[in-house]
Amino acid sequence: MTQEISTLIENKDFKGLKTIFQDMLVPDIADALDSIEDPTTIMIVYRLLPKAISAEVFSYINPEAQETIVKSLNNTEISFIIEELATDDAVDFLEEMPANIVEKVLKGATPETRRTINKYLSYKEDTAGAIMTPEFVRLKLGTTVDEAFDHIRNQCEEAETINVLYVVDEKKVLKGVLTIKELLLAKKSQIVDEILTDNVVAATTDMDQEKIATIFSKYDFLALPVVDKENRIVGIVTVDDVIDVLKEETTEDFEKMAAIHTSDDEPYLKTSPFKLVARRFTWLGILLITGIFTSMLIEAYETTFASISALICLLPMLMGAGGNCGTQISTIVIRSLSLKEITFKDYFKVFFKEFFVSLMLGILLGIIAFIAVTIQHGSWLLGLAVALPLILVIFIADFLGFSLPLLAKKLKLDPALIATPILTTILDCCVVFVYFNFASWILTL
Amino acid sequence: MTQEISTLIENKDFKGLKTIFQDMLVPDIADALDSIEDPTTIMIVYRLLPKAISAEVFSYINPEAQETIVKSLNNTEISFIIEELATDDAVDFLEEMPANIVEKVLKGATPETRRTINKYLSYKEDTAGAIMTPEFVRLKLGTTVDEAFDHIRNQCEEAETINVLYVVDEKKVLKGVLTIKELLLAKKSQIVDEILTDNVVAATTDMDQEKIATIFSKYDFLALPVVDKENRIVGIVTVDDVIDVLKEETTEDFEKMAAIHTSDDEPYLKTSPFKLVARRFTWLGILLITGIFTSMLIEAYETTFASISALICLLPMLMGAGGNCGTQISTIVIRSLSLKEITFKDYFKVFFKEFFVSLMLGILLGIIAFIAVTIQHGSWLLGLAVALPLILVIFIADFLGFSLPLLAKKLKLDPALIATPILTTILDCCVVFVYFNFASWILTL
Repeated sequence: MTQEISTLIENKDFKGLKTIFQDMLVPDIADALDSIEDPTTIMIVYRLLPKAISAEVFSYINPEAQETIVKSLNNTEISFIIEELATDDAVDFLEEMPANIVEKVLKGATPETRRTINKYLSYKEDTAGAIMTPEFVRLKLGTTVDEAFDHIRNQCEEAETINVLYVVDEKKVLKGVLTIKELLLAKKSQIVDEILTDNVVAATTDMDQEKIATIFSKYDFLALPVVDKENRIVGIVTVDDVIDVLKEETTEDFEKMAAIHTSDDEPYLKTSPFKLVARRFTWLGILLITGIFTSMLIEAYETTFASISALICLLPMLMGAGGNCGTQISTIVIRSLSLKEITFKDYFKVFFKEFFVSLMLGILLGIIAFIAVTIQHGSWLLGLAVALPLILVIFIADFLGFSLPLLAKKLKLDPALIATPILTTILDCCVVFVYFNFASWILTL
Repeated sequence: MTQEISTLIENKDFKGLKTIFQDMLVPDIADALDSIEDPTTIMIVYRLLPKAISAEVFSYINPEAQETIVKSLNNTEISFIIEELATDDAVDFLEEMPANIVEKVLKGATPETRRTINKYLSYKEDTAGAIMTPEFVRLKLGTTVDEAFDHIRNQCEEAETINVLYVVDEKKVLKGVLTIKELLLAKKSQIVDEILTDNVVAATTDMDQEKIATIFSKYDFLALPVVDKENRIVGIVTVDDVIDVLKEETTEDFEKMAAIHTSDDEPYLKTSPFKLVARRFTWLGILLITGIFTSMLIEAYETTFASISALICLLPMLMGAGGNCGTQISTIVIRSLSLKEITFKDYFKVFFKEFFVSLMLGILLGIIAFIAVTIQHGSWLLGLAVALPLILVIFIADFLGFSLPLLAKKLKLDPALIATPILTTILDCCVVFVYFNFASWILTL
């Protein structure tokens, strides 16, 4: 498809493009636009789109292309787009734009739209307020099913979803929810009060988006109402936004665990090299300095071991084993924490389980190390001097690996931040200490 | 809530429990059941549930509780549950049960249900076939809008969703989709042929669930039809299942990157210690052995450096820096690959960007190392002997860090598997080689 479009663009076959767009879905048209690099061509192709879908296509394309397009549009055209966009899409778009573009766009909006957008822009990022949309169907208490259908038909075009309907009293306080299915099954003369579900799960405007994702995943919702302090409904979050949230939060966790300073979800290829250096340098620098301290610790022991050089050559192997083991269990615990499968209360359950697991792993790995070192150096005493501390190292690595994230959670810190980088540093020092003390005892140095 | 329920259970206040259940949402009731440990109590509480929701609650509770309940139910009760469950929930449940329970349950099902379930159980795990459900609303070509509504009202109870409706010809071949919104806006006398969207995105039964999640995320779908080779619709996948898929796939990626053998998504606390040891030992063992080889490589150089012991003490620092840098970039690339933000085609774009980024990072880290080592040992030559190889190490680490995952993707291997563990091992050897050769050249050893 993309190939076909590229050819049409190259040949300036605008008639052909118009025809092909008619058979394409909006996200696919957006993909095609995103793949064009030349700004003039982007504009030519964008202007070929049927007016009815142009605003929707706009909401799907990437911020760079959005900026290119907005720069070239006149005020009437901008005003058309901003009025057509769903509020949450408009807010997403404006959040990515530089100040002068935001100003230009808001000037083109009607006073009402401008007020709504400004309100939504003021909610803190990553909260329900920032990702909700005000386009939902509101029904008043006392409405009959028949009236409700008329109402839905009138609000359909605007609403983000009609699958869930929200019933409010005269003060806009949320009284219950109704699905379109329940409405279809009800008698036409019934009033909505009789068929609504009054046990409503709702978010507050300041609720964190991660928490919202958890609610969707638990209840299998398609939409979640967002209420203010007086329990008045101010917006809804829909499931498609939640999928984006899940992806965003996952990326953040991955980055934190890889010792990267998390960004505001810019795709890699769009991030400037300087930003990339900045995001990565902080942790690399800190870890380098702690690495230098570890080396000083090693040096303090080194003179004792000058006679048995093999000992120090095996140190990186022990550090590696400890680090790998710690990363494994901390990853398991961090992931379980974020899936709410475990909480700090389970600390002792984890402790007893890991006591066994780490001992088993330590003994198995110790046996391998013992055999390998004994064969390599022809000294079972040296084998023992590596294998025994290895068992202890695995035990400590495992213990720190589950304790640190759980403790972080308890202290309301981010477990993912505690993970790999910090853990590895603490571990490295422990390994040096345990290994050299153990070895000098076994080899009676 | 959970506290209140525990108290009611302790006091055997069954009337109170019945009352409280009436005001609770199904997933919350399931949570309450999941938190009970004693099998007899689980059964008592389960039997208190209103019959209308008991099957739904059953679909939400964890496999252990499901097993407990099924073991105690008689055939009529089991038959009730299995007939009430949506097919995808029934399949999910049976996939987790031991063979004797599956047999008992299938005996209780009607021949038709049994046939359907057996068919679904035969689809490969993690494919569209395995996660789809046959409970959707099918409309025939030529149906009028008015007839369609009657049809929906009749099929409502059974259907997993009525938000999207599927139009088929007499051979059940999928001809188009319709949303309930489009149907509500249409004239009653129109036929569905006129209002359907014929440009349908559909999955095949063998499509991987990760690919399905990508489709949902791209098109913001609520449901996706699944078709067989003749384009006949055989089921639908709904967005709530996709959220589960996203969580499952993320966990898998985390585990692979932490060198854990991935499991069939058992929660940590429910996994036996033996299984945990098995899942973690494989990679730890492999990495330990490669670590021993690295130590042999170090030893080959060690004799040359016996005179300057500081060099070998600084080796773990260099290994750490290289490992951290490689983990950072490989995490960025793997995540970007799984979000489809980059492909193998972008290799040279990444290359040129990272050429600059890694050089910058290397120089910055090199300066820190130079200053620290020079001060620590009072020798700028030694500082240089560490700083210069460090720059090269960062460069190599970065190069391998983005090349290996991209190459893996190109070779249709799993980039996440190539990540941290394998990368670190290759890197460790590179570091030893680069460091000692560089240092011996600078210090003219």
